[in-house]
Amino acid sequence: MELLKFLLFHVHPLDKLFSYERFAHLNKEQAWMMIESAKLLADQEMAPYFKAMDEKPAHYDGNGKVITHPALKKIITAAAEQGWIGGSAIFEHGGMQLPELIFGTAHHIFQAANNGVQGYLGLSVGAAALITSFGTIEQLTQYVPKIYSGEWQGTMALTEPQAGSSLSDIITSAKKIAESEYLIKGQKIFISAGQHEACENFVHLTLARIEGAPAGVKGISLFIIPKFRPNPDGSLTYNDVYCAGDFQKMGQRGYATTHLSFGDNDNCIGYLVGEPNKGLNYMFQMMNGARISVGLSAASVAMAAYQYALQYAKERPQGRKSGDKNPEAAPVQIIHHTDIQRMLLTQKAIAEGSISLGLECNLLYDLWHASKGEEKKSYQLLLEILTPIAKSYPSEQGSRSAALAIQTLGGYGFTTDFPVQQHYRDLKIMSLYEGTTGIQAIDLLGRKVSMENGQALELLFGEFKKEITSAYATEILSTEAELLDQEVARIRWVLNKLKPFATAGDTASYLSDATVFLEMMGYAVIGWQWLKMATKSLELLSSSNLSAEQKAFYEGKIHVCRFYFKYEMPHTAACATVLTNESALTSIQNFNLFN
Amino acid sequence: MELLKFLLFHVHPLDKLFSYERFAHLNKEQAWMMIESAKLLADQEMAPYFKAMDEKPAHYDGNGKVITHPALKKIITAAAEQGWIGGSAIFEHGGMQLPELIFGTAHHIFQAANNGVQGYLGLSVGAAALITSFGTIEQLTQYVPKIYSGEWQGTMALTEPQAGSSLSDIITSAKKIAESEYLIKGQKIFISAGQHEACENFVHLTLARIEGAPAGVKGISLFIIPKFRPNPDGSLTYNDVYCAGDFQKMGQRGYATTHLSFGDNDNCIGYLVGEPNKGLNYMFQMMNGARISVGLSAASVAMAAYQYALQYAKERPQGRKSGDKNPEAAPVQIIHHTDIQRMLLTQKAIAEGSISLGLECNLLYDLWHASKGEEKKSYQLLLEILTPIAKSYPSEQGSRSAALAIQTLGGYGFTTDFPVQQHYRDLKIMSLYEGTTGIQAIDLLGRKVSMENGQALELLFGEFKKEITSAYATEILSTEAELLDQEVARIRWVLNKLKPFATAGDTASYLSDATVFLEMMGYAVIGWQWLKMATKSLELLSSSNLSAEQKAFYEGKIHVCRFYFKYEMPHTAACATVLTNESALTSIQNFNLFN
Repeated sequence: MELLKFLLFHVHPLDKLFSYERFAHLNKEQAWMMIESAKLLADQEMAPYFKAMDEKPAHYDGNGKVITHPALKKIITAAAEQGWIGGSAIFEHGGMQLPELIFGTAHHIFQAANNGVQGYLGLSVGAAALITSFGTIEQLTQYVPKIYSGEWQGTMALTEPQAGSSLSDIITSAKKIAESEYLIKGQKIFISAGQHEACENFVHLTLARIEGAPAGVKGISLFIIPKFRPNPDGSLTYNDVYCAGDFQKMGQRGYATTHLSFGDNDNCIGYLVGEPNKGLNYMFQMMNGARISVGLSAASVAMAAYQYALQYAKERPQGRKSGDKNPEAAPVQIIHHTDIQRMLLTQKAIAEGSISLGLECNLLYDLWHASKGEEKKSYQLLLEILTPIAKSYPSEQGSRSAALAIQTLGGYGFTTDFPVQQHYRDLKIMSLYEGTTGIQAIDLLGRKVSMENGQALELLFGEFKKEITSAYATEILSTEAELLDQEVARIRWVLNKLKPFATAGDTASYLSDATVFLEMMGYAVIGWQWLKMATKSLELLSSSNLSAEQKAFYEGKIHVCRFYFKYEMPHTAACATVLTNESALTSIQNFNLFN
Repeated sequence: MELLKFLLFHVHPLDKLFSYERFAHLNKEQAWMMIESAKLLADQEMAPYFKAMDEKPAHYDGNGKVITHPALKKIITAAAEQGWIGGSAIFEHGGMQLPELIFGTAHHIFQAANNGVQGYLGLSVGAAALITSFGTIEQLTQYVPKIYSGEWQGTMALTEPQAGSSLSDIITSAKKIAESEYLIKGQKIFISAGQHEACENFVHLTLARIEGAPAGVKGISLFIIPKFRPNPDGSLTYNDVYCAGDFQKMGQRGYATTHLSFGDNDNCIGYLVGEPNKGLNYMFQMMNGARISVGLSAASVAMAAYQYALQYAKERPQGRKSGDKNPEAAPVQIIHHTDIQRMLLTQKAIAEGSISLGLECNLLYDLWHASKGEEKKSYQLLLEILTPIAKSYPSEQGSRSAALAIQTLGGYGFTTDFPVQQHYRDLKIMSLYEGTTGIQAIDLLGRKVSMENGQALELLFGEFKKEITSAYATEILSTEAELLDQEVARIRWVLNKLKPFATAGDTASYLSDATVFLEMMGYAVIGWQWLKMATKSLELLSSSNLSAEQKAFYEGKIHVCRFYFKYEMPHTAACATVLTNESALTSIQNFNLFN
């Protein structure tokens, strides 16, 4: 909680928001009280089931429903009551008009406490937001309050077995039967939170293709497809959405992953949201939010693993200090060993850096929505370019961080008696959810870097520059400021080397190592976050009457910043070496070379 | 199997061994027949239970025994019959005098087929070898044949709850009651293959401390402690070794991991092996072999995951070629996508490079044992310096490789319908078994690099130089040869920077980033293996009448070598930057900095 206070009050200051009309109704104390009640909820209602939900996974009952942990209903209801499903909606839509910075922080706390649970809430948030943004007022009135109350579950139904990440190939069909009403037929897989027993109805925000629509992504429409159709009298009629099975997974085992079958009996009605053929555009509103949330989720799990490993390292006595040859000396706690310290600092650098980035994105989201004109545009562009990075750095490096948590515990870490192995398993899905790392990489290099004539990237570098200047002025952080400055130059150099391919229309070559570029940008962006945290910490250290703990807290930030720049940042040079080496080794035509 | 043929006949040539008396009884054809029968055994008796053993883990029955998969007994017996437990022993000890290069290759095949099974065999091999090397002829006669036949299971019992990796702190006690007979009392945890139902007796090679022995590692002795004591008439008497429980784990779930309690009723007799207080030295014979085997095991699992991902990528249609904007075009197999190719090539580089290194170590082991004088010494030194690297590179990078296999499959890879997630889970233990990565790093930098005045390292660089010279001469591989040459210079530079700390007796500083040094050495050593494979492939490509597949196979090796040097090798520079940066960020005294 100290970290969150530091981030929300100093690094990504909440107050900045209160001057905008949208958030003028809030103040710091109120916001912090909400965060504290989210923490209480997480501690009391979510964390206790972390292990149990893993040991008794959500599973298909063979008859249209997924059996979830008995506590789930209670958890969803309690979270809904505190406003953690509908709270970020504006007042007129029944919400509390909370900024994402508060709302997302609460969800981060849930993600860290029990990663198999937050998704149920998060999907409802996203589905309700989609209906609110693009649906009719009738649709909003009919579905959204029930989702906010936790009685109904929202989901997003995109993936189909034959299409996977390639959404242009979805074939679920929609045949018009009345104004805005369509008969739906098709199969959707990997539908998280789909038709389990903890909610009475399900609102599937589903992508389908209206008969006669153009091929590809331009022929995809968005539908509300409830499991039960609400009748005018409030009763419900089964809408022919059958849960045909589930997927068992290596992690997030408490979180139901289902296979849904729409219209097996030709009686499944979908309600068009917005205009036909614009479904993918609409869905991307939800998707962009979901990507940031997945990144923050990965960061949250990495943080939970780090916290456990740290506690363990402080308590577990084993071995002696390096150089101490006396076998009769008492063993020391393993936190004394430099190799353990290096592992802990790496975890801290990854987890906290990722959380800071996630909250930065939430703040940008709020500023974008609260502001106007040029300012609004800037915030949006910054958020756009950061999204693929905020999704993938925590997912990829988070797995490495959780592996180090296991390593810190030694053999115990591999056993189910300890939570870190579950963190490691839970985390692996994050690099796949909502667009794999490869998809994020193409988004970043293929779209975001060049959007609006490269303006998003320049804005980002402008933000870097601000931190570099502040950090440089401190002298204490001048080395790190210089290193980040070099990164900017390095990224420009790499892009100059790559651009000719794009200009020549050779997209394949331009994008062939997009993932390496994404990795490089990830290192740089997290470096920027650490510089920000360290500069702010230095400033706060100058204030009087700090307790010893507070002092250590801020000094720790400076320490980890320097650690990050020493240990992690050098890998960007390796990425640049790869990216500027023009031998095209990944355009293989003869697949026998792989044998 | 093509890879193994290539490695055994060309890269690490078996024939080299046949000129030594110890292996003169063998020839290539015979050797290959044995490998082929191992493959058949793996396909027929091991692979079919890979998933089942994961789904129904080995588990404690509450009453002294671990319930394993019903097929285990049959598997152990079949492997024993083919000679895969006792086959590497010399003829006079009842073995087939097989080189490790053949024996270890067979075990590699088992590890790849079903990683939860090979350990049962491997531990028996190690236990029997220890008795054979250091026990009396009576001990050998009494225990070894039963282990070779698979009726009895050998184990190694080192770890204790309070000591973990710190073997100097073990407290299991031994009180002399007769010549070579001791009353044993103590607890051992993480005992793999301990007291399950597939074998009738268990021979625990156990470390304990004789009453009055000096503190630390110099007071540890090695004992044979059977679960049942064999009586002169062949009957068995319970020896008070109780299996008190097991550990459930995130991977290798078919492999029993037990907690053993010795002498609860003061009736547990241990039989001293060799001289008192030399137990750890003896154990390290087994340990060194086990480290290479663990590395090869990690490589095997990474290889199995790669093979699956490759097959999947060739079959799964999804998306279109980069730049193809026509949504009506048929989807292509994902192997056409450059990001998938990059992931596959990375996996191949890691898995095959690691297997090659493991077999190099096995060959060195054979040459060491078969040769004499100076030659013998050189082989031993080379093997010593390679051991920590052959253990840890595959363990650490293998996990990354298996993660890429999951990523290749997308969301499917995370589900239990597909094996790659099991590979990912199984693999994680490898960085913990037989000395964690941190322990290997201290072994490498703290001991091996400086041993015999740095002779081991010079021998290794001499081997590098040979490949560099050959590769340089090919011209086609001159870039890679030059890069490896640069690595040697870089490693020397790093060591020159570090040495002053060691000279000044500041071991803590000298070893603080030993893990980074190990990582760097790992990259270089695998580069050396790839250069070796590529140079050999070039040579073979010049021979006439190659089939198209053979040609592609060799060209693939050259391709991956170049890929490795382009994509992986640059990270050594990052490691060197870390290692030569003298700011000591990992010697934290104030642990509040971690908060």
